[in-house]
Amino acid sequence: MKRSREIAAFQGEKGAFSQEAARRFLGDGIEVLPCQRFEDVFGALDRRKATAAVIPIENTLAGSVHENYDHLLHFDFDIVAETSVRIMHNLIAPPGVSFGRIRRVYSHPVALSQCLDFFAKNPQIEKVPFYDTAGSVKMLMEERPKDAGAIASALAAEMYGARILKRSLEDDHRNFTRFFLLRRADSPHRLPTASGGDRGWKTSIVFTTRNVPGALFRAISVFALRDMNLTKIESRPLRGKPWEYLFYLDFVGRLDEPKCQNALRHLRELADFIRVLGCYPRGE
Amino acid sequence: MKRSREIAAFQGEKGAFSQEAARRFLGDGIEVLPCQRFEDVFGALDRRKATAAVIPIENTLAGSVHENYDHLLHFDFDIVAETSVRIMHNLIAPPGVSFGRIRRVYSHPVALSQCLDFFAKNPQIEKVPFYDTAGSVKMLMEERPKDAGAIASALAAEMYGARILKRSLEDDHRNFTRFFLLRRADSPHRLPTASGGDRGWKTSIVFTTRNVPGALFRAISVFALRDMNLTKIESRPLRGKPWEYLFYLDFVGRLDEPKCQNALRHLRELADFIRVLGCYPRGE
Repeated sequence: MKRSREIAAFQGEKGAFSQEAARRFLGDGIEVLPCQRFEDVFGALDRRKATAAVIPIENTLAGSVHENYDHLLHFDFDIVAETSVRIMHNLIAPPGVSFGRIRRVYSHPVALSQCLDFFAKNPQIEKVPFYDTAGSVKMLMEERPKDAGAIASALAAEMYGARILKRSLEDDHRNFTRFFLLRRADSPHRLPTASGGDRGWKTSIVFTTRNVPGALFRAISVFALRDMNLTKIESRPLRGKPWEYLFYLDFVGRLDEPKCQNALRHLRELADFIRVLGCYPRGE
Repeated sequence: MKRSREIAAFQGEKGAFSQEAARRFLGDGIEVLPCQRFEDVFGALDRRKATAAVIPIENTLAGSVHENYDHLLHFDFDIVAETSVRIMHNLIAPPGVSFGRIRRVYSHPVALSQCLDFFAKNPQIEKVPFYDTAGSVKMLMEERPKDAGAIASALAAEMYGARILKRSLEDDHRNFTRFFLLRRADSPHRLPTASGGDRGWKTSIVFTTRNVPGALFRAISVFALRDMNLTKIESRPLRGKPWEYLFYLDFVGRLDEPKCQNALRHLRELADFIRVLGCYPRGE
């Protein structure tokens, strides 16, 4: 099959942390397709406007992105890689604007709220909410105020030709987001499963269990009885169905190993519903 | 002990969804203490500036608020109640401003991004990011522009004397946030455990297991072997410690029941670390 040029869809403006993840997955020489909503990212991959999609799935401070798990269930794509990006907030300004002149800093309120120590130490600087981190850098480069900066990724500074005045303003440095790379099942870009995986393989599944006591215990036994390691488990209540839950589960193993096949066959006996979201090399 | 007047600390401006939760927990006649950060909310309870704290712990779309679990571990408070609030985004404007005149709508970008269908249907209206949902209503009531509205809770409209022009703009109506009510262990406001709990009781714990295969399976067996129901389980990787996890677990049961005491004693044999965060009547 002919492999077309890579186009990676992600949510946010050019220079978003998702683009940093896309670059790590696919290298520098790709086209990007910034989208307004996560739903649009999945839609772009579905309508073949993109060859790959990059989505955040969990953040060390903010938790799992349930919305993207919902889209993973609705669209039938495969997770083919994972990576973890440190969310580093930098103070960025157009060339010629020095730190001493800055009186306003634009960014997404979530980013602003993660840099409160910086604002406490610099009371001369006002926080100004903006709809997007990278978008605030883009706006400054267009409008060129002499007394304003933005908080965004290093990539955003690079993309728009702005300068980083201070690095790593965030109060809590343990701020990481885990991203998935998604492909359509028929994608010619997919790697053979033999490549990669020096650190092992992971498989991500979603399932629901029957509403009986001990159901989760029996579901987990499927892996414990085969000495398989879990790296994530999370329950999510189903609204309007008290006592019924979706479970997200990641385990160490490659889908084509007999042990994994047996465990999943066993789990199908116990679960009402089960979906394999993907099998991919363990990322950093 | 003399019971002083209730003062509830929460994050956000007056009229925030957290205040709606506070009202549900404690009624109308309380004082409120809005705080800038979650850390400040815990600090206010610690320094006795507040008699209670109200914190969001998980949202059906956005996941668990890990930051608040961290604060729960750091501060030694007790969860004494839970409630689930539907996050309903309303279009709000000062009295005298009609829907037809609105050209700009202010709100927190997360709220704006949850109402994109409304903005798609009303292309004459521009989205304007603001640092807070309730804060945008407060600002409009002070500045009184003739062509602007805000997106916020019904409580925010009520607090600031503004009017609701359209209810429930959010794209996804399954948007609920679960809140905890926290008290100091020595609080005279604590209810006796005999009251409430018509729908049963829940206990929330955090624990870590030894890094061995099947450790989680054994930990869960502690509950399964006693026919106890779990209502939440979530793993959270510990950064810099591959293969080590914190687990959040909620189970149905009252801490002073022999079965619960036995289960927790059993779990202490298996867990490296365990902390009971609270025992409270099951909320809606």
